[in-house]
Amino acid sequence: MERPIAEILSQGDELVTGEITDTNAAWLSRELTGLGLDVARHTAVGDRLEDLVDLLREIAERADLCIGTGGLGPTCDDLTVEAAAQAFGRPLELDQDTLARIQAYFTRLGRAMPVTNKKQALLPQGSERLDNPWGTAPGFALQAGRCRFVFVPGVPGEMKAMFSRWIEPDLRRRFRLAPARLVVLSTVGIGESSLQERLDRIALPPGVKLGFRAGGPENRVKLLFPANFPETELNDTVKRAADAIGDAVFAIGGIDEGERDLASVVGRELAVRRSTLHVVETLSGGKLASRCAGEPWFHSAVVVPDSAALYRYLGMHPTDVPSRAETEVVPRLREQGADYALAQIAHFERDRLNDETETVEIHFVLAAPDGVWRQTRTIGGDIKRKQITATALSFDILRRYFLRLSGLWAC
Amino acid sequence: MERPIAEILSQGDELVTGEITDTNAAWLSRELTGLGLDVARHTAVGDRLEDLVDLLREIAERADLCIGTGGLGPTCDDLTVEAAAQAFGRPLELDQDTLARIQAYFTRLGRAMPVTNKKQALLPQGSERLDNPWGTAPGFALQAGRCRFVFVPGVPGEMKAMFSRWIEPDLRRRFRLAPARLVVLSTVGIGESSLQERLDRIALPPGVKLGFRAGGPENRVKLLFPANFPETELNDTVKRAADAIGDAVFAIGGIDEGERDLASVVGRELAVRRSTLHVVETLSGGKLASRCAGEPWFHSAVVVPDSAALYRYLGMHPTDVPSRAETEVVPRLREQGADYALAQIAHFERDRLNDETETVEIHFVLAAPDGVWRQTRTIGGDIKRKQITATALSFDILRRYFLRLSGLWAC
Repeated sequence: MERPIAEILSQGDELVTGEITDTNAAWLSRELTGLGLDVARHTAVGDRLEDLVDLLREIAERADLCIGTGGLGPTCDDLTVEAAAQAFGRPLELDQDTLARIQAYFTRLGRAMPVTNKKQALLPQGSERLDNPWGTAPGFALQAGRCRFVFVPGVPGEMKAMFSRWIEPDLRRRFRLAPARLVVLSTVGIGESSLQERLDRIALPPGVKLGFRAGGPENRVKLLFPANFPETELNDTVKRAADAIGDAVFAIGGIDEGERDLASVVGRELAVRRSTLHVVETLSGGKLASRCAGEPWFHSAVVVPDSAALYRYLGMHPTDVPSRAETEVVPRLREQGADYALAQIAHFERDRLNDETETVEIHFVLAAPDGVWRQTRTIGGDIKRKQITATALSFDILRRYFLRLSGLWAC
Repeated sequence: MERPIAEILSQGDELVTGEITDTNAAWLSRELTGLGLDVARHTAVGDRLEDLVDLLREIAERADLCIGTGGLGPTCDDLTVEAAAQAFGRPLELDQDTLARIQAYFTRLGRAMPVTNKKQALLPQGSERLDNPWGTAPGFALQAGRCRFVFVPGVPGEMKAMFSRWIEPDLRRRFRLAPARLVVLSTVGIGESSLQERLDRIALPPGVKLGFRAGGPENRVKLLFPANFPETELNDTVKRAADAIGDAVFAIGGIDEGERDLASVVGRELAVRRSTLHVVETLSGGKLASRCAGEPWFHSAVVVPDSAALYRYLGMHPTDVPSRAETEVVPRLREQGADYALAQIAHFERDRLNDETETVEIHFVLAAPDGVWRQTRTIGGDIKRKQITATALSFDILRRYFLRLSGLWAC
């Protein structure tokens, strides 16, 4: 086979009426492109059986692979199974395993299975079931014409989990893929244009494509190397890029490893030391705690709504910032039993938080067993942006502390 | 003409490789749906001339209107004009007016016009030019088969401005439009299939379309009424649907009002009473606080990592659940100064939180000035799902409390 042609099909009235944006198609396209497949088209259709049947037949004639999302739920507007049955003349059959799984799902929740969910156990004859431990709707795959169709639910979390678990390994086996190699340098606390400026100083070998993915405080630099690019030259290029960026780089990874985020990099350091972390959140507003939840190193978090509440909670005055905060107030937080205590000390009014023109100076103060460390930054953007940035920079002071400990970073 | 069928076509490699998400298609769909047009499909293709020519011919046979975005720039990968010329046998002609405009644009910027921009003054024979005062690429419109094609640039700002200036007035003249009306019932704590079952009990008038949008604990029921549906019958239908679902409905809205989420519904009740809320989070892991941050009614939040830490923090024993928790422990939390205190009391190990097969029984205990209220639920899913569900159900006990206060809900 030549380079196989892939398509993405998305189903749902909420797409063609514009109620939601089709982020699934973009996500799947990135994955498929990364694997070395050419995505030729995205199509979205609403909840009309004839439209869907026509479209499936068209795709069966022109593509080698089609990933479909949506339309697998229990309700009357979920038409994918029926459309595939009609389009390809495959009568529906009841899948006993699936029925048992759906029943078990409801039993675990202590509820009787609604009758409508029985529909989700019907599959077109001759199709392979793709189990969905993350929800009730299983996916399925079938061959029609030249095209392999794979259908998964439209809920992004379920779709992504099923892609990783079932679809990607299958595609690697089924198509002989010669993917380009993508190396991603993850950075924190440095803007996209500064990254571009620093990287302009190094010459990339011909054929290597430079890209960026902005993510607020965590920005990614992408180096796309052509298939069969020499390994030593690849490593050298990556090293030169990382050196040009400097200590803002917190992880370097290929596409296969998945992306390591800052929280997991820092969490690993805490976990290997069997240490725990207590946080006092202001600007991050609970978002930091939500990244710590479930982790063995999470001690506890307190979230206060404004600086007045912060000063009250910590028993301090605005004039204590930063000196008494560092010498006394934050270190005392460790008395609650955590090895590390981190406080976000900032002066702000809650009703200005969502004002994008309002910037806030924030001191990240980290009390560790061997001393206190501080990093002061200015944060802007709307409330969501402020939460995300303050969360990332909280993890960043910990990252820099552990770098220092390991001697890799000179103060 | 029957109800005209519209399609959206988006062009660009950056779409089919997933580098960007097609927000233009969603925006245009909302506009067209609002005008009373049915959008049947979205299609995105990359920068390949044959693909685009094929697609234009397909659309000319099945749609009455197609709005295309992208592919009008000056570079080699901008193919829309050429594709339209080939698809419909309309040779390219130089438009002198357009050339003069593009030259004037560069003169204003104090630069000479690059040679490549001359390409942008070519249009397929017999097409109407749509001026673009917001950029260099003009749009154009032409009739082919049954379909009127309108092409505009992919830059969102230019696309939107050109839609308002040229396309919308033209559509209103050209098609006799009568918009449908969408009513959305927002619900919490009830699954999609249970919603379907409850709504199966009522008969919807002919022509009214029922739809669902799943969002975890917050699920939406959509009722789409045809144009000119009688107002009293519409209100009656919405009321019967809301009654069939019951007290899980927390908001009823049209498409224009935007969607009200549960946090804002509850927040408004707290705000009008000038009351404040303190929360102790377990399963929601900080996510509840992040929805309270910035709000005038947010007092503070504590996030604990597991039930051992919860019992320690609250000074209680597992055997105190639920009775002593209700009579003594949670009410005491109000002593910190908040009018309302809400605690999520659950027995769980942190390392099982991300296990989708692990469900957790959780008591939402609300201490209010006039008494204590409890709602007990079982929550499943991975850690993210558990956080989202616990957050929604925390707001839900407050919502039910305020409903009771206002006498709209009988216990």
